[in-house]
Amino acid sequence: MKRFFYPQTIAVIGATDDPKKFGNAVTSNLLSNTNLQAQVFPISRNNSTVSGLKAYKSVNEVPVDLDLAIILVPANIVPSIVDQCINKKVERIIIVTAGFGEINEEGKEIEQQMLEKSKSVGIRIIGPNCVGIQNVDIGMNASFIQSPIPGNISMVSQSGSFGCAVIDGMKWQNCGISKFANIGNAIDVSFDDIINYFKEDENSQVIAVYIESVKNGKAFFKGLKETSPKKPVVVLKGGRTSAGMAAAESHTGSIASNYTILKTAVEQAGATMCKTIEEYIIALKTFSYLTLPRGKKIGVLTNSGGTGVLFSDKAEELGLKLANFSDQLKEKLSPHLFSLVQKVNPLDMIAGAREKQYYEITKAMLEEDSGIDIVVACGVYPPFLGMKFENNYRGIIRAWNDTGRKKPIIPLLVFGNGYKTITSFAKQEHVPYFSSPSEAAYAVKILIQRMKYLNTHNL
Amino acid sequence: MKRFFYPQTIAVIGATDDPKKFGNAVTSNLLSNTNLQAQVFPISRNNSTVSGLKAYKSVNEVPVDLDLAIILVPANIVPSIVDQCINKKVERIIIVTAGFGEINEEGKEIEQQMLEKSKSVGIRIIGPNCVGIQNVDIGMNASFIQSPIPGNISMVSQSGSFGCAVIDGMKWQNCGISKFANIGNAIDVSFDDIINYFKEDENSQVIAVYIESVKNGKAFFKGLKETSPKKPVVVLKGGRTSAGMAAAESHTGSIASNYTILKTAVEQAGATMCKTIEEYIIALKTFSYLTLPRGKKIGVLTNSGGTGVLFSDKAEELGLKLANFSDQLKEKLSPHLFSLVQKVNPLDMIAGAREKQYYEITKAMLEEDSGIDIVVACGVYPPFLGMKFENNYRGIIRAWNDTGRKKPIIPLLVFGNGYKTITSFAKQEHVPYFSSPSEAAYAVKILIQRMKYLNTHNL
Repeated sequence: MKRFFYPQTIAVIGATDDPKKFGNAVTSNLLSNTNLQAQVFPISRNNSTVSGLKAYKSVNEVPVDLDLAIILVPANIVPSIVDQCINKKVERIIIVTAGFGEINEEGKEIEQQMLEKSKSVGIRIIGPNCVGIQNVDIGMNASFIQSPIPGNISMVSQSGSFGCAVIDGMKWQNCGISKFANIGNAIDVSFDDIINYFKEDENSQVIAVYIESVKNGKAFFKGLKETSPKKPVVVLKGGRTSAGMAAAESHTGSIASNYTILKTAVEQAGATMCKTIEEYIIALKTFSYLTLPRGKKIGVLTNSGGTGVLFSDKAEELGLKLANFSDQLKEKLSPHLFSLVQKVNPLDMIAGAREKQYYEITKAMLEEDSGIDIVVACGVYPPFLGMKFENNYRGIIRAWNDTGRKKPIIPLLVFGNGYKTITSFAKQEHVPYFSSPSEAAYAVKILIQRMKYLNTHNL
Repeated sequence: MKRFFYPQTIAVIGATDDPKKFGNAVTSNLLSNTNLQAQVFPISRNNSTVSGLKAYKSVNEVPVDLDLAIILVPANIVPSIVDQCINKKVERIIIVTAGFGEINEEGKEIEQQMLEKSKSVGIRIIGPNCVGIQNVDIGMNASFIQSPIPGNISMVSQSGSFGCAVIDGMKWQNCGISKFANIGNAIDVSFDDIINYFKEDENSQVIAVYIESVKNGKAFFKGLKETSPKKPVVVLKGGRTSAGMAAAESHTGSIASNYTILKTAVEQAGATMCKTIEEYIIALKTFSYLTLPRGKKIGVLTNSGGTGVLFSDKAEELGLKLANFSDQLKEKLSPHLFSLVQKVNPLDMIAGAREKQYYEITKAMLEEDSGIDIVVACGVYPPFLGMKFENNYRGIIRAWNDTGRKKPIIPLLVFGNGYKTITSFAKQEHVPYFSSPSEAAYAVKILIQRMKYLNTHNL
């Protein structure tokens, strides 16, 4: 797989200057990063130059060996182009073009023929019917979709535009990507190939999988099982219900796998199984930003009683328990609280709580001997008394920094316009925030789940 | 209740120019709207003017009759201030000050004494331990929290800062408020009083309730039952679990009511019971923006197969069914689709779909004879071929406008930076958007639920 992600020479077959064609999008995306350490060769039947580069009539004319070819020509001529690539001994092929196995039986047959030929000479294929791949670490966008921000998450997605939406959603949440692959109809390279590669890849610290169907279940689960001890793997399955499965079938031409069976197997393999996009993004954000807790004792502080109540609800629903504050901790908290405040968990500091209080209380809970393993610091926008949302958040993060970021912190900032003011701060400090009690409770749940998984397996 | 929301004369007791005090926040909020048709009288023991207005030592000195007094003085002198208000025959009192029944038994006794005195002369009290009330229709912000944007939702909340967070969240979603009341410890005015008032109030078209405990269940459910036939009532309960209930107890000093019993009763009364803040905001947005469908046949279109799959999953999970397209509809759709596209529901128009296609397909489904009752129009951000997220959204909305907005439309726009570009368009056109398959499916579910409720009761 490494050859797909670190090519030295890349041919774009079907490259064009016509901005309405995918062949243009892929070429521009590749060339958009001037630091890219690979040479790009446009292949075009009709143009002598593309994007200012010399264009070749076919891969055979390219004067150097090719590591990777990306095919974007119409479906009917794809097989002959694959033949040319085989002749040229192009090591790796991505077929972006759609209109094969997802359409009809004939398409499936053509897929099989291409696969057999390439397999016999050791050439690997990603696709067809995919958007391409990306290696953000080296600035390579070999796809027709947007570039993510750099980060430690690597993703393999069966659906292209969905992967694209998730990348966009992650950007929105300050979550960055290391590598991305959309495997489309997956006639050759499959989930387990990519997952096994991410497992070994140092920059891939969290692995994201969007799946609609598993072709080779055994290999898939083996991949998960071997990867989970090393890094968190987060799985979202499209087609959980019969309606969803029917929709998936017409989407990538594959029979969607039974959800319940899949869920059990994924969780047994030590991976995190999500039910919704929301859970998926939160899980990725959580593992990308936070270390694991050493235990399961949760401490909650808030300036809004209602938010504390709703978090407690969701936490209990997910099987989590709020800790009882020790007398020692209560004593530490006391000098920083209004006299009315009851020293119970969740700790309602009431609406007048300001940055200094947020700092002191969060810090007390984060300290080594607090008896708390995970701190959930809630805040609602306090639009009175000249108080500022972002200051309370700053207090939380300062406490996290001053205690060496040793315990996970879940800043739960409910709603609103305050977000505008904290986004750049969050980016600069590389800190997360969560937007609802459900999100926060889910983050806590999966952190504890993974901690337990690793403990159980003595990892 | 009308007297609380439409006062002509208002006294702020504990008014001050000190920006760190709630007495300042309430005075400034009241005076911030220069169109407010009520006279404001600051009451202050220490200052002769507040906010540039003459301040009075006590309500007795105010030369006119007072409709409403808002009390912000320290807890220990609140009872004597209430006595003064009774002497002055102030019609309505809001006690913002905290430190009564939510703290201890003594506080509960003081509450009872104040209640008995005021009750005997027909004066009503909101609070104590509340943020105040608002009537956005007349620009009256008689609270220390921020002003919402104007709209058709009226809310009663047991928690102040939570109500405040929801208002902020709604602003973010372009959802406006007509009236807002936080009833705090609710020694006198209770949920049913406010709900019954909103029921009759013309501008309150959707009613939002955030509740932690019900004191007088019978009156509460009677209120819901009488209101639901007229307008949708959306309820969120804090303290659904034992952990949440314990947290609620320390929050507003009340024993939280059993969730399961409450849920059944709320739903029997025809109201919508939400489980999370997310559901709450979506329900409010949905009822605020959309008309009810005439049937339960759902049509889905998308430029992202994965999104269609995930919506189908969530829909089935919520007991919803996607319609089968009639031959007549398929024929109408055909000329606007790429040849590869299969004419099944969800309709995956594939990633190349542009504004015109979105317009034509959405319109075909929205038309009178389409056999579709609710249209879910999904889009992911298409970051290629020069396509723009907002254009596809425009296509959807144009189709909705051109068909007279007769059927509900659920624009499901998954994630991302595209939001920035559509927010102002959405505001200007007064149209909603939903951000995930779960959100969209929930919106569809509650619309159908309410349609069925009204049908069953021949309403």
